[in-house]
Amino acid sequence: MTRTRQDCQVLDDEDTLRELRHQFDLPPGVIYLDGNSLGVLPRATASRVQEVMQREWGQDLIKSWNTAGWIDLPGRIGDKIGRLIGVKPGECVVADSTSLNLYKVLSAALQMARADAPKRRLIVSERSNFPTDLYIAESLARQHGAELKLIDSVDELPAALNGDLAVLMLTQVNYRSGFMHDMAAVTAAAHAAGALVIWDLAHSAGAHEVDLSGARADFAVGCGYKYLNGGPGAPAFVWVNPKHAERFWQPLSGWLGHAAPFQFTPNYQPAPGIRRYIAGTPAILSTAALECGVDTVLAAEALGGMAALRKKSVALCELFIELAEARCASLGIRLSSPREASQRGSQVCLSLAAPLQEAGYAVMQALIARGVIGDFRAGDPRRLEQVPHILRFGFTPLYIGYAEVFDAVEHLHAVLASEEWRRPEFHQQGAVT
Amino acid sequence: MTRTRQDCQVLDDEDTLRELRHQFDLPPGVIYLDGNSLGVLPRATASRVQEVMQREWGQDLIKSWNTAGWIDLPGRIGDKIGRLIGVKPGECVVADSTSLNLYKVLSAALQMARADAPKRRLIVSERSNFPTDLYIAESLARQHGAELKLIDSVDELPAALNGDLAVLMLTQVNYRSGFMHDMAAVTAAAHAAGALVIWDLAHSAGAHEVDLSGARADFAVGCGYKYLNGGPGAPAFVWVNPKHAERFWQPLSGWLGHAAPFQFTPNYQPAPGIRRYIAGTPAILSTAALECGVDTVLAAEALGGMAALRKKSVALCELFIELAEARCASLGIRLSSPREASQRGSQVCLSLAAPLQEAGYAVMQALIARGVIGDFRAGDPRRLEQVPHILRFGFTPLYIGYAEVFDAVEHLHAVLASEEWRRPEFHQQGAVT
Repeated sequence: MTRTRQDCQVLDDEDTLRELRHQFDLPPGVIYLDGNSLGVLPRATASRVQEVMQREWGQDLIKSWNTAGWIDLPGRIGDKIGRLIGVKPGECVVADSTSLNLYKVLSAALQMARADAPKRRLIVSERSNFPTDLYIAESLARQHGAELKLIDSVDELPAALNGDLAVLMLTQVNYRSGFMHDMAAVTAAAHAAGALVIWDLAHSAGAHEVDLSGARADFAVGCGYKYLNGGPGAPAFVWVNPKHAERFWQPLSGWLGHAAPFQFTPNYQPAPGIRRYIAGTPAILSTAALECGVDTVLAAEALGGMAALRKKSVALCELFIELAEARCASLGIRLSSPREASQRGSQVCLSLAAPLQEAGYAVMQALIARGVIGDFRAGDPRRLEQVPHILRFGFTPLYIGYAEVFDAVEHLHAVLASEEWRRPEFHQQGAVT
Repeated sequence: MTRTRQDCQVLDDEDTLRELRHQFDLPPGVIYLDGNSLGVLPRATASRVQEVMQREWGQDLIKSWNTAGWIDLPGRIGDKIGRLIGVKPGECVVADSTSLNLYKVLSAALQMARADAPKRRLIVSERSNFPTDLYIAESLARQHGAELKLIDSVDELPAALNGDLAVLMLTQVNYRSGFMHDMAAVTAAAHAAGALVIWDLAHSAGAHEVDLSGARADFAVGCGYKYLNGGPGAPAFVWVNPKHAERFWQPLSGWLGHAAPFQFTPNYQPAPGIRRYIAGTPAILSTAALECGVDTVLAAEALGGMAALRKKSVALCELFIELAEARCASLGIRLSSPREASQRGSQVCLSLAAPLQEAGYAVMQALIARGVIGDFRAGDPRRLEQVPHILRFGFTPLYIGYAEVFDAVEHLHAVLASEEWRRPEFHQQGAVT
């Protein structure tokens, strides 16, 4: 029998992670299922950023590079993120954006591949990967005389792991479908084929357990503003397997990646290890906010850590699927994410079957008007059967509860059953992020 | 006769720009002569960043990309900076760091040079340029089969403008000496030699009048956290002459430089014009703070704008030189910046003659202890006569007054006359920024 709201309330009451929600000020009346796009504001952030502005910048001014440790932030926060992705202190730094960090590691990977296996000239990724990853790879393929080959389905992956492959570049959890790669298995297979592997952890870090070291991965990048709650456009992170870190320059050789930046020497000498992946001066306000966000995830360490968060995430997603199918399947709702939890990140995507296949945008707008914030991702208008419009819902176990999942599905039911989504105001298109 | 403190007080009373100082909360008891390294906190910034955090992020969450105009910030602030550097709306954007923006424009310039004049393979810059510029050029020279040639003196510049030159890359105002290039004359000479010119405006934007369009410059980058008061590590800006902007990709092809980022297409299609120089998602908190800083400079527009600011800057610098030489020359102080105002940015550097040539660091520490914040830049220990240790003082006419200049020199006199700088605590070395 489908679970009731009371059942969900009991799950909330028994939830040992529930206290973590008090780290955030969520707007009243909102069920926020878009933490996979922009995480929410931690309570600690506003006062911390005020302190950085008023005391560290306003009062102590230039001294704060040393006295407030601004210069150490990229490494300090990188170490904290390292605890979430299975790497040691000193292996990860915060810097720039995911796009730029990907540029750094893919450049390094292509240099390594050229040195070790000059005949390998393919970068393989998925056509459904987040576009910025593909754009950066397209740029570097041009530069390095490599070729970017895109596969259309994960079924094509085994065949792509061949003697032409230089670098396999994947986002572990697909931003649209939520499909999750088995990092250890894919890495091992790519290594067996003689290739290097780059993982984009944009939808992984802070969302589920990641063990880069255990998987013997080569490179990873990830996003600060999704599950890490770092704030809009928060700086990103970058990790390089220590065995590769000093083999090559990354090309964005800014002064803070220099071995001795304050000696102001005219020649570049890359810093040891991961610090050479820092480029220019870090944006301190945004970086300080990121640290507060990362701390909200680390706060779970005393309560079972990422394993406990993942367990709750799976439970939330499974509850959502169960309720959405029970209540809304007859109204056209279909699951568009993998059903198997081990193949799914912390999000669930739904689509609408014919004759409602075009209604997704308006349905999401109607949900948002009711305070249920998810997002819409357009499908391929010429073949909606294969690539449908998507209603995307992210479940962040730090601050989402079971009764909220129940309520979200009830809103979805109401929007569809009452045909509320047909109201004209829900059909105005705006930029979608 | 040397001016008295009362003379300086009169200058302050008559200063039509004096009201601009009320835009800032300066710490009490501090004479801040380091705005060329990190500008001060504008009063508007703290409340603006609070609003971005609490309302835009905390309450409106993901919607703020549209409703709060986050997506437009790079262009909106770029347009504001454009008013300070002599370019039209739509020609300048804010993004990333100075280092990364330099990477973008130098890549584009080298592609252009390769297409138009394949035999030209030299990038010329000054050995005394800020190191990050040289490190980025070193990286790109490797990539493009070009060569970075460094000149040791501006006297070598004419000879360097020859048929081998592809790109001349200069910082208009030298970070150490304060020497200012004549942008129009140098650009014209480089163009006459068939080369492209990149200007780094790190110590120019907001400090003095800049007319990129009038000089027919090719590319420019600049810093948000110095004279623009954008906050520590604030995002930087980038300008490309519209006639070049669409000729080539810049290689950091992140999704927000795409012509239609929200269509999520797998192939990169660069945005028209300068927007292709945006890469990844902007760090919104730091970017919002930058806008407040830029606004503090634009506030001068009603009072004569950059011309009036420059006039005051020259007056402050000349007063400082006059007083420092009158009071401290006999104590070993020497001018290490150009004496001629037209060859000097908004800073003045002093050095110490023998036998005090090693004392610079301790003298600056003693000044800082007295609340006079400048900074120290080490010379070349093997040839201090030619490259002395430098005491660097920046004069930001938005918030520095004439009496403060007088007081700063009196403190310098006291530190030297009393040999206060010999106290052991002033000899402990820390990281210098």
